[in-house]
Amino acid sequence: MPEIRKTIEELTELVATVLVSHNASEDNARQVAIALIAAEVEGQKGHGVSRVASYSAQAKSGKVNGFAIPEVIKVADAAIRVDAKHGFAFPAFSAAIETLTDLASNKGIAAAVITQSHHCGMLGYHAEKLAQKGLIALVFSNSPKAIAPWGGNQAVFGTNPIAFAAPRANSEPLVIDLSLSKVARGKVKMAYENNQSIPEGWALDKDGKTTTDAAAALSGTMVPMGEGKGSALVLMVEILAAALSASHFGFEASSFFTADGPAPDIGQLMIAISPGPLSANLYFNRIEALIAAILGQEGTRLPGSARAEKWEEARANGIKIGDQLFSNLLKLRNNPL
Amino acid sequence: MPEIRKTIEELTELVATVLVSHNASEDNARQVAIALIAAEVEGQKGHGVSRVASYSAQAKSGKVNGFAIPEVIKVADAAIRVDAKHGFAFPAFSAAIETLTDLASNKGIAAAVITQSHHCGMLGYHAEKLAQKGLIALVFSNSPKAIAPWGGNQAVFGTNPIAFAAPRANSEPLVIDLSLSKVARGKVKMAYENNQSIPEGWALDKDGKTTTDAAAALSGTMVPMGEGKGSALVLMVEILAAALSASHFGFEASSFFTADGPAPDIGQLMIAISPGPLSANLYFNRIEALIAAILGQEGTRLPGSARAEKWEEARANGIKIGDQLFSNLLKLRNNPL
Repeated sequence: MPEIRKTIEELTELVATVLVSHNASEDNARQVAIALIAAEVEGQKGHGVSRVASYSAQAKSGKVNGFAIPEVIKVADAAIRVDAKHGFAFPAFSAAIETLTDLASNKGIAAAVITQSHHCGMLGYHAEKLAQKGLIALVFSNSPKAIAPWGGNQAVFGTNPIAFAAPRANSEPLVIDLSLSKVARGKVKMAYENNQSIPEGWALDKDGKTTTDAAAALSGTMVPMGEGKGSALVLMVEILAAALSASHFGFEASSFFTADGPAPDIGQLMIAISPGPLSANLYFNRIEALIAAILGQEGTRLPGSARAEKWEEARANGIKIGDQLFSNLLKLRNNPL
Repeated sequence: MPEIRKTIEELTELVATVLVSHNASEDNARQVAIALIAAEVEGQKGHGVSRVASYSAQAKSGKVNGFAIPEVIKVADAAIRVDAKHGFAFPAFSAAIETLTDLASNKGIAAAVITQSHHCGMLGYHAEKLAQKGLIALVFSNSPKAIAPWGGNQAVFGTNPIAFAAPRANSEPLVIDLSLSKVARGKVKMAYENNQSIPEGWALDKDGKTTTDAAAALSGTMVPMGEGKGSALVLMVEILAAALSASHFGFEASSFFTADGPAPDIGQLMIAISPGPLSANLYFNRIEALIAAILGQEGTRLPGSARAEKWEEARANGIKIGDQLFSNLLKLRNNPL
């Protein structure tokens, strides 16, 4: 596929302009654009520029409120509830992170739920922001249904990502970001489009039986990573992200992609922990001892460690983007839906 | 193997007496006994009565301080640090749970680390206690080294369990309790002792290569559940349980079994969340809607749901215990090490 290169700034500007032209505030559009471009830089293309068309259509139709101003409600000394007001998730995360940073620093730990929320892109992006403020972050999101309860055949849960970020004294934070399906559903879609079969163990058909047929998998459910154990984690995240925030469960949520119907209204939970008090101020020394033990072994690397190079590359040489995808952005800018 | 039946009370009394006769306070011995018997009832025999001999030997040698009185230090408004003082973990957990219950109820969320700690048995046991007080609980522990960093061949991390418990309005809490190795190391040991091979994917040999030879596996490392993704979770738990509590990492910790050497000094983290404020008081309704969607499908069950029946059975008919194991307890009681 032919590709062109654009600078981070050019691409961010273009995406923001497209969103504004489809009913979003300047500020919301900019926050969404920065997050999508970050995913593009880090190679997580499923959370990157490919989302602009469906985000725009949803802002246009009103499924997403592009002018939403998230509301932060303090519900306890160390807990806040952030209402995303059916807007994009990114402004709600920014508001949550700002308040959480102070709260966790003062209280030792603090929590924020986000409700009436939407697709939050790379979950690690939000966790990392807390870690850049010196806090350990745990972030959970649910998402539209894709995974069945263990033993069942109907999707109830999303692929329910977990993100974790740990601050370091003299390095960028360590970031872990994983969705709980064994593989992304996009991989099954791609196999289907290329008329290929999928490896056993990725997905189940509509009767809950393992399948290597991509079409059968698409009308079935995704297998959790770690099978039964992973399935328990999927349930845990569904409770933390959606029951605790009183949002829609995966089986109740509308699509993150289509422009019709009601808002997805899923939920998120962020927990921020100040490592100083709990560790008697030994945390920053201790985590380096652990990292040294890991990296002292040949063949190892830290999760997320490839990201720094990707940012360097993108800053120096711009971002590669498919010709077709880029010209679609231009079309959306010049001729809003 | 011939088995006998003893009541919960008889067995608890016997285990407590054995521990007291090996240098433990009445109160500590009772707390340990109650937790070990709970594991025995729930079928988690690796955390049950089988531990009494090595616990006794460690109390006798002083590797565990059977008379330790845990110290609770409030380090921030919503955070406590509990020093287990190289005693058994169970009294430290009890102290942490007592303080956390009030803190989390008042602050919305609260955290406790436990340091200078030891084997904590079934992790879900502690999470469940918080959920019985109406709190959502997340509990993490590290443990002596068993798992290599992804791509490496030397064990750095423990099998690092995660426990989660969620309260319900009119039912016992939903409890999730899983260690992050694909299978327990005990299964490899058993295969070795029976001269059997192990399935591919359970363990790696000392060169980091997958092996079906149980002996090679025992001198190698365990594979995490969910492979690379699971490996990231193992690292996350190591940071949360040990770096945050400033305790020993898996690769620094001594054995939970042998009586010689220094204390293991591993760590734990408990997070307790009050679901009312964060969910605008909708949590208890919402979790029932989720559970109904799960159990409405044939073939499904909730994690931990078999436990209730096991308790009923044990209360009605006592606990089955191997003849040999029981007579060892009697020997230990009558002739302390």
